Amino acid sequence: MAQSPAEAAKSYVEPREADLAQQFGDFLAMPNVAADPAGLKRNADFLLHELTKRGVAAQLFTQGDLPPVVYGEIQTPGAKHTIVFYAHYDGQPVTNSEWTVTPPFTPVVRDVNGERRIYGRGAGDDKAAIFAQLTALDALHAAKIPLKANIRFVWEGEEEAGSPHLEEMLDAHRDLIAGDVWLICDGPVDQSGRQTVVFGARGDTHVAITVYGPSHGLHSGHYGNWAPNPAMELVQLLAGMKDENGHVLIPHFYDGIAPLSAMEKQALAEAPVNDRMLMDAFELGHTDGGGRHLLDLINEPSLNINGISSGQTGAHAANVIPPTATADIDLRLVVGVDWKAQQQRVVDYVASRGYFVVDTEPTKEMLLSHAKVAKIFRDPASYNAVRTPLDLPIAQEVIAAVKGARGEVELLPTMGGSVPLEMMIRAAHTHTITLPIANYDDNQHAANENLRLKNLWDGVETMAALLEMD
Amino acid sequence: MAQSPAEAAKSYVEPREADLAQQFGDFLAMPNVAADPAGLKRNADFLLHELTKRGVAAQLFTQGDLPPVVYGEIQTPGAKHTIVFYAHYDGQPVTNSEWTVTPPFTPVVRDVNGERRIYGRGAGDDKAAIFAQLTALDALHAAKIPLKANIRFVWEGEEEAGSPHLEEMLDAHRDLIAGDVWLICDGPVDQSGRQTVVFGARGDTHVAITVYGPSHGLHSGHYGNWAPNPAMELVQLLAGMKDENGHVLIPHFYDGIAPLSAMEKQALAEAPVNDRMLMDAFELGHTDGGGRHLLDLINEPSLNINGISSGQTGAHAANVIPPTATADIDLRLVVGVDWKAQQQRVVDYVASRGYFVVDTEPTKEMLLSHAKVAKIFRDPASYNAVRTPLDLPIAQEVIAAVKGARGEVELLPTMGGSVPLEMMIRAAHTHTITLPIANYDDNQHAANENLRLKNLWDGVETMAALLEMD
Repeated sequence: MAQSPAEAAKSYVEPREADLAQQFGDFLAMPNVAADPAGLKRNADFLLHELTKRGVAAQLFTQGDLPPVVYGEIQTPGAKHTIVFYAHYDGQPVTNSEWTVTPPFTPVVRDVNGERRIYGRGAGDDKAAIFAQLTALDALHAAKIPLKANIRFVWEGEEEAGSPHLEEMLDAHRDLIAGDVWLICDGPVDQSGRQTVVFGARGDTHVAITVYGPSHGLHSGHYGNWAPNPAMELVQLLAGMKDENGHVLIPHFYDGIAPLSAMEKQALAEAPVNDRMLMDAFELGHTDGGGRHLLDLINEPSLNINGISSGQTGAHAANVIPPTATADIDLRLVVGVDWKAQQQRVVDYVASRGYFVVDTEPTKEMLLSHAKVAKIFRDPASYNAVRTPLDLPIAQEVIAAVKGARGEVELLPTMGGSVPLEMMIRAAHTHTITLPIANYDDNQHAANENLRLKNLWDGVETMAALLEMD
Repeated sequence: MAQSPAEAAKSYVEPREADLAQQFGDFLAMPNVAADPAGLKRNADFLLHELTKRGVAAQLFTQGDLPPVVYGEIQTPGAKHTIVFYAHYDGQPVTNSEWTVTPPFTPVVRDVNGERRIYGRGAGDDKAAIFAQLTALDALHAAKIPLKANIRFVWEGEEEAGSPHLEEMLDAHRDLIAGDVWLICDGPVDQSGRQTVVFGARGDTHVAITVYGPSHGLHSGHYGNWAPNPAMELVQLLAGMKDENGHVLIPHFYDGIAPLSAMEKQALAEAPVNDRMLMDAFELGHTDGGGRHLLDLINEPSLNINGISSGQTGAHAANVIPPTATADIDLRLVVGVDWKAQQQRVVDYVASRGYFVVDTEPTKEMLLSHAKVAKIFRDPASYNAVRTPLDLPIAQEVIAAVKGARGEVELLPTMGGSVPLEMMIRAAHTHTITLPIANYDDNQHAANENLRLKNLWDGVETMAALLEMD
């Protein structure tokens, strides 16, 4: 009896684990942050070469000096479907001093509680998916298993920057990137470790709020009690945005949310509840949401302070009334809540708290003629949420392929994280389904990002099954 | 008719302004921050030499590797009084990147609106006072004006660190440093430019509060809405500490304040009101205190956020729920409010908001068994406020000497800033009176610290008059 694609992947990987881990490490060693455009270009060139040497017709979609989209295609005579594999090779910004296991681009494999993990920026998010797809191609080739569908690879380099140019780049090649389904290979599987198939992602936008105190730092003794402290004004502004349970108090913040379908509600009800385990893993004494479960809460929009800064803390702290205070806020969106409207709700809230809101550095005249001034940056690199209906025929076919490879799977209406699905759907006139492979505890977006190697090997099996779909 | 001390100072300074500015610049070029103990030692050795070469019997009070106290004494046969001149040669920490005029230890003289100013850390706070005293000695010597009182110089090197060892060092030499009055030569004169004589200073203490989110940064999409954000919890905690007018809401915060005497109230009523000018200079659209004046408000304790930090803002901002959030808080104190009690009021407030308060890094068990945990550092380098009664005979003599040199003067019951007067009074069994010379807009404690050179020359005159007191 012929090997299944997943079995072929397993047979291919098992004797080569050390070699494959080494090759993956070489890939992670290439810096992939927005601050280093040359590093991103090296990643793209490397991937172009990896596709080409496997016989995949490949090219870079370029636009000026932007990180290119790496594109590959395999035409299969008589194919019924075209399946597009999306992933991204760029990673979140790094703060080297926070990386205690290894510097972000000096990957190492470490044993963690009996499991091998590889550390480096991009390990989980999202180079693992690209490496699993390339390795799955090799495994199918080695087992002489022919492909049945047309296959496309679209690997972008600006996802962590909000994919500001992806839609333009796709639009410029819309004949190449169209497909029956886009498989978004990004994000972590369920915290239980079970293979997850996700039918949507939250949208994402940001605002950055700066409020103003004195035009330069003032001595906190000589002027404290009298000169307004912008850190205090910012904390008072931010504090009013949520109640003690994490429920957002900004007016209309939850307006317009599209309700879940019966099938989506059922999938959610069948998903494992990992909350207690996660609280223990993250050392959390309580959670937001008034006792509701994580998987339930990610179906709502969120407001998260990514960072706040004013003056200095620790060794550099000085007795000063700082001139400004700034907070970076991440807004996650669900279907029915538009990113521009959500930004506006925050702006309206700030204005309602007595602030004169500007979008550029305020002049002295503005500062003197208004009691309070806030500068709000509205990030234009934003996109809305998407949910693909679970009952579409192509959705059912993908579920069947993944079940064939990995046994029991978990179906989720949305993931908490964001991918620019909306623009893919617009550009490729397609549906999207998300197939994550990383471990949930991969420190994605933070220091010491890592991938459990077992997740990489399982991911090769999953990708082999999907590559081999009808 | 013989020259007055102030006239002698003027005659001495006028032909030498360029030379003196250069010498002052050489003094400022010596790094004087706590992070650089060797730099502080070089300052002390330099000052020891400056005293010795002027015939002042001088020595360093040392304790291990701590920045020494520079001590000098001039015995005058038949003297009625012993007058002690206190100043400090250390400066606040510096963040080089914020210094836009010149690096902190590369002094330059710049013309600002027709006035010459010298830029560098310590220019106003507090090397100006030391340099003015040395120059006043030279001026009196050149004019052959004999001293009448015994004179002592006590110049410390840990003032900006809260003078944690000053009292011990003074105690070890209590026979040397006793005096009828300690003249605290520190701080800025009134914003109007009028020479100020100040009879007290606010006390000062600090707390640093850290609250905890997940044990490491979590993806804000996958966990936002569920994992508590420590930045949001900190802003909610801090926001409750003050109302919108800057009035502190922490229970008992204003309890125990010793009321001002009739003479103190009168001095305050006669002081110039500079609030509108200051609002314009600092580009403030409003002030705290519900319309009360600055000079009134500094007679109350204050709470100032020196710095707040969580995650990253700006180019390094990432979509993460940060693991911790920290605020450094400066608490200024007035007579009747003890620093330990004030710290405790803050701690009690934090506990009343549902936090389990610890003073060391919490364990995982602590974090899991309490909904909220706050680590609060209580700075032991703290001291209380002091006010010397205006009607003491020695106070009246000091006022007369300063009026003789500078004409009209402004008398203030307290300054907003802090000096460790309490420990001086304990160690030297003395009274303290503060004689500032720096311009109010000297960017003290901040970047681009500077001294208006005219204030330095006026300061030489003032110091000459005080050195020549009976």
